[in-house]
Amino acid sequence: MGPEFGFPDLLSRKDVEEAGERICASITRTSVLKSDALNEKCGVELLFKCENFQQSGSFKYRGVSNAVIRLGTMDRKKGVITHSSGNHGAALAAFARKLKIPCLVVMPDSASEFKRQAIYRYGAEIIDCESSLESRESTLEGLLSERGMNFIPPYDHADVIAGQGTCGLELLDDVKKIDELWVPVGGGGLAGGNVLSVGEELQVVGAEPALARDAYEGLKLGVRQPQMEPMTCADGLRTALGELNFSILTKYKLPIRLVTEEEIIRAQSLMMSCLKILVETSAAVPFAALLKYGPHQIESRRIGVIVSGGNILV
Amino acid sequence: MGPEFGFPDLLSRKDVEEAGERICASITRTSVLKSDALNEKCGVELLFKCENFQQSGSFKYRGVSNAVIRLGTMDRKKGVITHSSGNHGAALAAFARKLKIPCLVVMPDSASEFKRQAIYRYGAEIIDCESSLESRESTLEGLLSERGMNFIPPYDHADVIAGQGTCGLELLDDVKKIDELWVPVGGGGLAGGNVLSVGEELQVVGAEPALARDAYEGLKLGVRQPQMEPMTCADGLRTALGELNFSILTKYKLPIRLVTEEEIIRAQSLMMSCLKILVETSAAVPFAALLKYGPHQIESRRIGVIVSGGNILV
Repeated sequence: MGPEFGFPDLLSRKDVEEAGERICASITRTSVLKSDALNEKCGVELLFKCENFQQSGSFKYRGVSNAVIRLGTMDRKKGVITHSSGNHGAALAAFARKLKIPCLVVMPDSASEFKRQAIYRYGAEIIDCESSLESRESTLEGLLSERGMNFIPPYDHADVIAGQGTCGLELLDDVKKIDELWVPVGGGGLAGGNVLSVGEELQVVGAEPALARDAYEGLKLGVRQPQMEPMTCADGLRTALGELNFSILTKYKLPIRLVTEEEIIRAQSLMMSCLKILVETSAAVPFAALLKYGPHQIESRRIGVIVSGGNILV
Repeated sequence: MGPEFGFPDLLSRKDVEEAGERICASITRTSVLKSDALNEKCGVELLFKCENFQQSGSFKYRGVSNAVIRLGTMDRKKGVITHSSGNHGAALAAFARKLKIPCLVVMPDSASEFKRQAIYRYGAEIIDCESSLESRESTLEGLLSERGMNFIPPYDHADVIAGQGTCGLELLDDVKKIDELWVPVGGGGLAGGNVLSVGEELQVVGAEPALARDAYEGLKLGVRQPQMEPMTCADGLRTALGELNFSILTKYKLPIRLVTEEEIIRAQSLMMSCLKILVETSAAVPFAALLKYGPHQIESRRIGVIVSGGNILV
């Protein structure tokens, strides 16, 4: 992940609660949607936490808000930088614009024009690099020393993880009781954050595309797996687990369910027709897994599902 | 409209408030969504009241709930009947299923297979008729005398109008202050109900497809216009204003804005890309009008927009 960061030894629910206090005025408290038709189909009550309605179109805005606010006034003024071809870059650009601080996004030339446009519209400066991880990191490090900006990584960072965990806290606060919370697993920021925030009182379950199952394999083997350059349509979940994220999920023994590409597309379409919402493929993965496997514990009745984002071209 | 109903001489905000108390446990308190991008585009703050998330997929569930509850236990048991090729039929079928009472929907054979399937899935009996208004009415009247069920009309009915008006009350309660409320105008149930509920404290504005401008012409001329069998893509707005609805909107001098088919489709697509929601064409009409004309009063800053439904095939 390039430059090192000082992680606290122990990241806990308290960190997520503090993040919630810190960012509550910056973020959107997103809606929770239900559908009788989907409940009947799954035989349980599903509560969809709609981060596709979040500012910048995904949950990434939570982690970014927490991390950038935590920089402190002096550092923050120097601006922020990241490498991202997707939602993290858009979230950082959107939050930087709100704070009127400079933002620079290193972006592989293979990134989709749609996502590039989104980051551009939020007013960030875009620096191109080649699509390899090495090129991203060397470009980023060069710019870091040159400009003195603050690197805000997409998932392998305590403040980012704590920010993402606020999602589950809000859901619990709104619906009072759920038996399980299903989340997509990419870099592990969302999964890790919500394991910290609500994992003690309910079962958190991860879902991953079968074509990008580095987390599934890594947790099974006890060894973090390298990025596999997977071809899944769920582009937000192509990244490998981060280090800190891997530690959190390993300690929790997160169960992970795998789904095929067809199952993801079918789930996305069902969410459109029954919930009336536009979600990106990555965001359909947990619901696809629920449709396939049912709840983790047979006695579970109320299942929270995090809908991670809605950034697709329409 | 076939059989006559005893309308109260005066329908008022109090009737809507009572409807709100009556149906609050039956309906979904729908979310209010915002988008910075759309706010920038319109130069005002837009607050979208999302009835596409309502049970049965549209605001029609409000009016139906109020009218059916008001029948009283004895009458209600006999079941409910209506003629509808769209959202009103689906709402009645869905609410009847919840109450476990019989429901019969007279449906023109020209109705879309998608809408027919929705009503069928809710468990209602469907009786086919020809697509003319005469055929609908004679089929309905025959069934009424034969089965003794209660006719719940789609819009020209005090209880239905009062139910639809709860939409604006909820929005105001959630967002505290708005300067204007924009609504689509079809039969006039939604427009009439919200004129009654919030029309005194803020400006209600109607929007209609230019191809189906019977309300616009009728209010201008002071004479209710007949159905024109309009070809607009906004199928929920093809009906002419009801009598009671016409009286309410005339008394209020409702301003009505007209939009083209292209403007409707463009607004629908913008709502999908910026709000991440699926809305039917009829539901995009008020936003299309706002995009075209801007707010009714130049000093208005916060505009409520009722998103009437999301029932389209995907």
